[in-house]
Amino acid sequence: MTSENIASHPGEVRIDLGDRSYAITIGPGLLDVPATYEGLPSATSAVVVTNATVAPLYAQRLLGALAARYAKVHTVSLPDGEAHKNWETLNRIFDTLLEQGCDRKTVLFALGGGVVGDMTGFAAASYMRGVPFVQVPTTLLAQVDSSVGGKTAINHPLGKNMIGAFYQPLRVVCDLDTLKTLPARELSAGVAEVIKYGPIADMDFFAWIESHVDDLVARDPQALAHAVHRSCEIKAKVVGQDEREGGLRAILNFGHTFGHAIEAGMGYGQWLHGEAVGCGMVMAARLSEALGGVDKAFVDRLSSLVHRAGLPVVAPILDARDNVGRYLSLMRVDKKAEAGSIKFVVIDPPGHAVVRSAPDELVARVIKASTQTFP
Amino acid sequence: MTSENIASHPGEVRIDLGDRSYAITIGPGLLDVPATYEGLPSATSAVVVTNATVAPLYAQRLLGALAARYAKVHTVSLPDGEAHKNWETLNRIFDTLLEQGCDRKTVLFALGGGVVGDMTGFAAASYMRGVPFVQVPTTLLAQVDSSVGGKTAINHPLGKNMIGAFYQPLRVVCDLDTLKTLPARELSAGVAEVIKYGPIADMDFFAWIESHVDDLVARDPQALAHAVHRSCEIKAKVVGQDEREGGLRAILNFGHTFGHAIEAGMGYGQWLHGEAVGCGMVMAARLSEALGGVDKAFVDRLSSLVHRAGLPVVAPILDARDNVGRYLSLMRVDKKAEAGSIKFVVIDPPGHAVVRSAPDELVARVIKASTQTFP
Repeated sequence: MTSENIASHPGEVRIDLGDRSYAITIGPGLLDVPATYEGLPSATSAVVVTNATVAPLYAQRLLGALAARYAKVHTVSLPDGEAHKNWETLNRIFDTLLEQGCDRKTVLFALGGGVVGDMTGFAAASYMRGVPFVQVPTTLLAQVDSSVGGKTAINHPLGKNMIGAFYQPLRVVCDLDTLKTLPARELSAGVAEVIKYGPIADMDFFAWIESHVDDLVARDPQALAHAVHRSCEIKAKVVGQDEREGGLRAILNFGHTFGHAIEAGMGYGQWLHGEAVGCGMVMAARLSEALGGVDKAFVDRLSSLVHRAGLPVVAPILDARDNVGRYLSLMRVDKKAEAGSIKFVVIDPPGHAVVRSAPDELVARVIKASTQTFP
Repeated sequence: MTSENIASHPGEVRIDLGDRSYAITIGPGLLDVPATYEGLPSATSAVVVTNATVAPLYAQRLLGALAARYAKVHTVSLPDGEAHKNWETLNRIFDTLLEQGCDRKTVLFALGGGVVGDMTGFAAASYMRGVPFVQVPTTLLAQVDSSVGGKTAINHPLGKNMIGAFYQPLRVVCDLDTLKTLPARELSAGVAEVIKYGPIADMDFFAWIESHVDDLVARDPQALAHAVHRSCEIKAKVVGQDEREGGLRAILNFGHTFGHAIEAGMGYGQWLHGEAVGCGMVMAARLSEALGGVDKAFVDRLSSLVHRAGLPVVAPILDARDNVGRYLSLMRVDKKAEAGSIKFVVIDPPGHAVVRSAPDELVARVIKASTQTFP
């Protein structure tokens, strides 16, 4: 897949899914302009779901833009963080929807990062068996990945994103200005998902990221605009071919099998999702090397880029007594697993990814190599 | 709609929904025959979800039939009754699925009545964003209504079936022999949903029920077989035209707007769903009369049939101080409501139903007339 394969209007990327198709609008200054929301279905009420961190920054501005379209706009502010992505928090959305007498036409707006988007999407999928919703992602990670493609979910104590739905938004609004207020650690976490698109789909883009990673971390507007746009294009193409992850879509999970084990093993919220994915990609690249898909130079190149993005490249010890066993047991509950056999996304060759299982001994070697601070 | 409109293989009714199409198999002695489950996708494991009442009667027989297809078959037994149709009980299914390492191919089997079917269906829709499931309804109500058509849900303290999904099963297996062990009160509750299909779609069928209601209550096998088959045919035709209740499908909710208010107002589980629907249909018929769709003779005819089926025809007092107000406020959270305006399914003329709103004064008159023991 090269940049030429996908033609999109600048500032807009379309996801083609038949009657569930929609546009991702990308640009500065979008959030508080009523025109951004033109064409959305009419309804008596709308509900903005956000969190305690984002609400003071952007909620009033979004409410102002929506006031023209909806007679009543309610707000639900959730506690911030992956640790709260559970049923209890989700139920606060349902409580508000029912207390405010929201009906089947009520439109939900997810204003925040991936956690807000995942929970609002699942609430929209489930409330009265489905109401419309719009994603307004305010983190780089949500703009390039989690807000696009219709994966919604909450966590279960025994596994991340285990309870959810495939449910597409009506529209995704990526206001690049919101990235200005993003903490540096979260910006880096988002760059992890940008990097991901290189090895799995487009090595030209990978080379571009290598040249511009410092600009991205410094929040250069043009660099961020290109990164978000190209990431969404690649994701749109993959999701358009495999909405419900029957096959191809799984390649978007490059680095996520190891990454999910790190997140769950450390306790949700200790490592940011993007940090775990950054380190997980380096681990998955090592596994790809062991399976013959890439050479050592590629692993070093990826590891160096992840490091320059401000992300961890050394895997944490999850269990001092049986670290490999702990990693393996956490990875066996991954959604890609089948009959207890763990499935990994591996690169073969660079720019192309496949889903494979691997012998436990090989995976153990990768885990051991990745937890060594001094290679 | 007449009986001639739908051609179906005897013992099987098909629901046509494109790649989500499936068959309802109807007959005696189906549950414990391995052939009943032929053609289902292969998987390492299956999970039978049932309840404390049904498990001792049928779980072992179903497990025996499934043992040939699945290497591991787990069982989850839930507490019985509408009062338990909530998140806490649903989560017991997720706990088992994760504890047993169930993957995306695991097949769930709902063995029980409407509550088990609704919860198993929603668990299947949500676990890992969707795993396959099969309905094995053991109550008349579930066989003729709730197991067919893909509506799944749990209740919220502020409203019935408010959280759920449209999610179709792979197959519905109606073993008529299971109706032999059904308590009389539950059998009558099922007859309520059978009666429903007459006024909304087929007055010939209504006349047949009038001639055979005593046979149904006495569990005559041939009468039950015809009632289940014809009910499923009508439901299949409606659902095939409007899977996600964009319009037509709402007619299947005849009697349910008043009925849901009774269920919620009395406390879930006090009145069985079918009992509330029976009484709710008489109320909805009175409203249809007030709106000019039917005459008094039709109301009396329906009321008499509901009564002969062993169902209540006098509406309960939900609030001694403001009964009408209580009914109205409960009905305003109905899923069909829009912008606070309650929508009712009314008959106009007999054999045909439409969705309409009605002035509060008219609805109040119907509630008052329906709560009088001596008309």
